Amino acid sequence: MTKVRRVISIVVENESSVLSRVAGLFSGRGYNIGTLTVAPMPNSQRSRITIATQGDERTIAQITKQLNKLIPVYEVVEHNEMVEKEMVLVKFPLTESLADIEVLCEAYNGTIVNVGVDMCIGMVADEPCRVKHFIEASNRFSPIEIVRGGVVAIER
Amino acid sequence: MTKVRRVISIVVENESSVLSRVAGLFSGRGYNIGTLTVAPMPNSQRSRITIATQGDERTIAQITKQLNKLIPVYEVVEHNEMVEKEMVLVKFPLTESLADIEVLCEAYNGTIVNVGVDMCIGMVADEPCRVKHFIEASNRFSPIEIVRGGVVAIER
Repeated sequence: MTKVRRVISIVVENESSVLSRVAGLFSGRGYNIGTLTVAPMPNSQRSRITIATQGDERTIAQITKQLNKLIPVYEVVEHNEMVEKEMVLVKFPLTESLADIEVLCEAYNGTIVNVGVDMCIGMVADEPCRVKHFIEASNRFSPIEIVRGGVVAIER
Repeated sequence: MTKVRRVISIVVENESSVLSRVAGLFSGRGYNIGTLTVAPMPNSQRSRITIATQGDERTIAQITKQLNKLIPVYEVVEHNEMVEKEMVLVKFPLTESLADIEVLCEAYNGTIVNVGVDMCIGMVADEPCRVKHFIEASNRFSPIEIVRGGVVAIER
């Protein structure tokens, strides 16, 4: 079956066991989550889980249905028309040119956010595919560590 | 006991059941996760989970110890000297001034990333406390939706 990419938002009760149960729904089907982000929603007792995943449409439909049945899940949105962004932090050694790294980060709407004694840290927040290209381009500058955040999405 | 804020990075096998088990370790102790982000690590079969949490030091120490015992966990880092960033997307109605919203976003190193027929979307990626202030300031412009990403951290 054709694999599709999907981004799903799930609004849940801000309760410690929910995340484990939502993740369990995916793993119970041997279904790997691409990225997942959970954070509390401002001015509420709820949290939002954003999951970016790839899989066949039928399995995703089944999981969405099960998510809707899961208590305490309030809302499940499969995003279609969305703005999605992802963040990445990359640590570079200062044996590389600081100016060149800055230019690279700026090319991806990012910047250097920290310069230490022997390393600097660049941050980029952009579309997931652009973040992927930024990481590929970073390899030229001997990255020491790359930390990606999960996809965050908002329906247009 | 005094509550402390901690950011923990966990490097795990990129396997569907791990997230559910890691989250289960927290919920098993009735311990609420603040934010959590998981994403695959480039060029590897591993994923990194970043958890930002508040709690008493003893419980966090216990959880860290148990995380280290969990298979397939490769590495657990309790961050001390770190650079941490968080992302937020906010949807505003176009009954508000687009120019004012742009100024607000820029004050927090962000920008407007989308303008539609009747709404615009601002993005900010900054320190967690600054993201909190940005969200507070956003309330002046009647936000329709606020989507926070989880904290991402890299050791200095």
